[in-house]
Amino acid sequence: MSDWQEISGGVTAPKGYRAAGIAAGLKPSGLPDLALILSKVEAIAAGVFTTSHVRAACVDYCRQRLQAKHSARAILCNAGQANAATGEQGWKDAIASAQLLGQELNISPNSILLASTGVIGQRIPMDALSAGIPNLVAAASETGSDAAAKAIVTTDLVTKSIALETTIDDRPVRIGGICKGSGMIHPNMATLLAFVTCDAAVSTSLWQQMLSRAADRSFNQITVDGDTSTNDTLIALANGQSRTAAITEMGEEAEKLEAMLTAVCQYMAKAIARDGEGATCLVEVQVTGAADDASARQIAKTIVGSSLVKSAIFGRDPNWGRIAAAAGRAGIPFEQEDLKIQLGDFLLMDKGQPLPFDRGAASAYLKQSAAGAYLKEDTVLISVSVGNGSGTGAAWGCDLSYDYVKINAEYTT
Amino acid sequence: MSDWQEISGGVTAPKGYRAAGIAAGLKPSGLPDLALILSKVEAIAAGVFTTSHVRAACVDYCRQRLQAKHSARAILCNAGQANAATGEQGWKDAIASAQLLGQELNISPNSILLASTGVIGQRIPMDALSAGIPNLVAAASETGSDAAAKAIVTTDLVTKSIALETTIDDRPVRIGGICKGSGMIHPNMATLLAFVTCDAAVSTSLWQQMLSRAADRSFNQITVDGDTSTNDTLIALANGQSRTAAITEMGEEAEKLEAMLTAVCQYMAKAIARDGEGATCLVEVQVTGAADDASARQIAKTIVGSSLVKSAIFGRDPNWGRIAAAAGRAGIPFEQEDLKIQLGDFLLMDKGQPLPFDRGAASAYLKQSAAGAYLKEDTVLISVSVGNGSGTGAAWGCDLSYDYVKINAEYTT
Repeated sequence: MSDWQEISGGVTAPKGYRAAGIAAGLKPSGLPDLALILSKVEAIAAGVFTTSHVRAACVDYCRQRLQAKHSARAILCNAGQANAATGEQGWKDAIASAQLLGQELNISPNSILLASTGVIGQRIPMDALSAGIPNLVAAASETGSDAAAKAIVTTDLVTKSIALETTIDDRPVRIGGICKGSGMIHPNMATLLAFVTCDAAVSTSLWQQMLSRAADRSFNQITVDGDTSTNDTLIALANGQSRTAAITEMGEEAEKLEAMLTAVCQYMAKAIARDGEGATCLVEVQVTGAADDASARQIAKTIVGSSLVKSAIFGRDPNWGRIAAAAGRAGIPFEQEDLKIQLGDFLLMDKGQPLPFDRGAASAYLKQSAAGAYLKEDTVLISVSVGNGSGTGAAWGCDLSYDYVKINAEYTT
Repeated sequence: MSDWQEISGGVTAPKGYRAAGIAAGLKPSGLPDLALILSKVEAIAAGVFTTSHVRAACVDYCRQRLQAKHSARAILCNAGQANAATGEQGWKDAIASAQLLGQELNISPNSILLASTGVIGQRIPMDALSAGIPNLVAAASETGSDAAAKAIVTTDLVTKSIALETTIDDRPVRIGGICKGSGMIHPNMATLLAFVTCDAAVSTSLWQQMLSRAADRSFNQITVDGDTSTNDTLIALANGQSRTAAITEMGEEAEKLEAMLTAVCQYMAKAIARDGEGATCLVEVQVTGAADDASARQIAKTIVGSSLVKSAIFGRDPNWGRIAAAAGRAGIPFEQEDLKIQLGDFLLMDKGQPLPFDRGAASAYLKQSAAGAYLKEDTVLISVSVGNGSGTGAAWGCDLSYDYVKINAEYTT
């Protein structure tokens, strides 16, 4: 059904983008910690940010920028310090960061968006940042996506990158993305960050609408531990360099672009869930039969976020009772007589009542799923139907293992 | 400030109640599994039940009973089978249970309330129940509370019982309670159950209002794993045997009674949180400065339910960043410049910014709290202020340990 193909190149796959990632001495480890994504021309920019009332300075900064104008040339991201709970000084540091990069690029600081990830309460070392920016700009290249992807991670086990290509108006149109996150929140190392580039020409309001809807069907549907970060940021640029006709309203081409944008966001969201702290497998919950899509998504997210369901999957236990209980407490009314639960190909419950099933084989399915290759065959699929409605939705998460507790109990001690 | 004293006797401490607990062969272990609480006269009855859309038959049964009339003589509780997701047959079993007890007591089955706890999807063995009921009724006594408390537990490590006495209308008035639960939900062994007896005379609508408010300040403010059970049930009886004048509207005496009812519920709620699966300590979060009490309670419950906060406490890590992040995502607006966080006596954050503190001493406070005696000195206290409002609220939970994962990963395998 997909109308696109996967290509290489990440955020530099679309036309007219360069990227870079360098070690500027912000992380104590000496690993890469400063990333840049740069569009050749001013690009339409849309953003989705954390809903937390405790937010990093960069989140407030981006919100202000995107309210003032819906476009940008560059995204600057530092890893190591979250610049959250840093008060007035943190805000000044954010402004100074944009000014430093603006001077080096010879563009207005108003065209620069910012993101930070790292320890909450720690300021960005501005001397190191200042010294690093000329090197960062010098390193920017049309093959720089991987370097940028490496420079935005914190405790992630792998970097996460994707690029897709489709045809619109008889010309190739591409969307690329990089992201980080190994938990919806990291302990002190806050955050989920995701950056998307696109070379289509699209109107500002439509691009923001598309991004918000894509986020609702991807990043907003993953959970590792139920904790929302102070720094969560998703920014998408569209610079029109594909030379396609501008897309200004919904229609066949807009739908094609939005579907591809959603696919890029879902790929990244799943990659983050799979890399969840202590995870041994990716868990996907698909819900059908709800009154509307939002209700289905709510039930899916509640199931995938249940500590009891997550523990059962870690224990390779086909525990349908926990899935039913989680569905029941999602806050979405349904008749329990309509509840149907499937794990992989095993039908565990139908018409609200448990069915006999081969427990050993179902447990083997869970074992096998977790032993599969990264992101390919290691998905545990839970399918739930709650009635005859047309609403469908999916959510992604991971299992709850001893390592999750270990990572989070021993993080700063 | 408390206007009452603790007494012994649990649910049989108030006048005019008998109770019993026996082993009827419902639990495979052969442990006590059938409990009865019996009032000498028809008592005013109020109930608070799970909000889950997947509910046990006994929950629907009690709701129907209490809608038809607001009084009852007896509560029958079985442990071992949740009688949830058992369909039409489960409903018939519930009705038959009430009829069997009604015949034995020679009262209308309409005066009997039911509760079940145990494995979801399993029916109550009706033969064993039927054979057990005469023995259960014969065993009922004015000192039977402990036996009843023992017969309602599943994986609980300890039984939970309380009784308080105050003076109203120059006469002693008592409230007693027993409860079970070792998680907001148990894996297959669903449930939080709590039974309260009182010998005051109080009007039906006032008693239900008091119980609902008390539940909002106690049971609804605890969380072990964020999962709501299919069987959660809180029932409170008031039989008027203290011979005090009937309390029919709010006023000094009603407030006194409600405060004592709230204290009984809070004692039981804390006992359940402390007995949370894998818990090494009780965690109490107090929130002040919110716009209203409900907002304060919401923030408190979000913090105490955060997996990251819970893991940090298990790791004895004074991680204020996780507390701030959890407060921020509670869905209650506040200015982050107003945020103040205290752990025990250690001020960790003020005016939204981290303060220097003795990390070793704060960690030692966490260690010491967990080493304290059960329910007495082992409380970790987190105090949070979010502004200048008059709203206050508290919530209780426990830490997240390796044993939580172990218990829930290995439960049925």
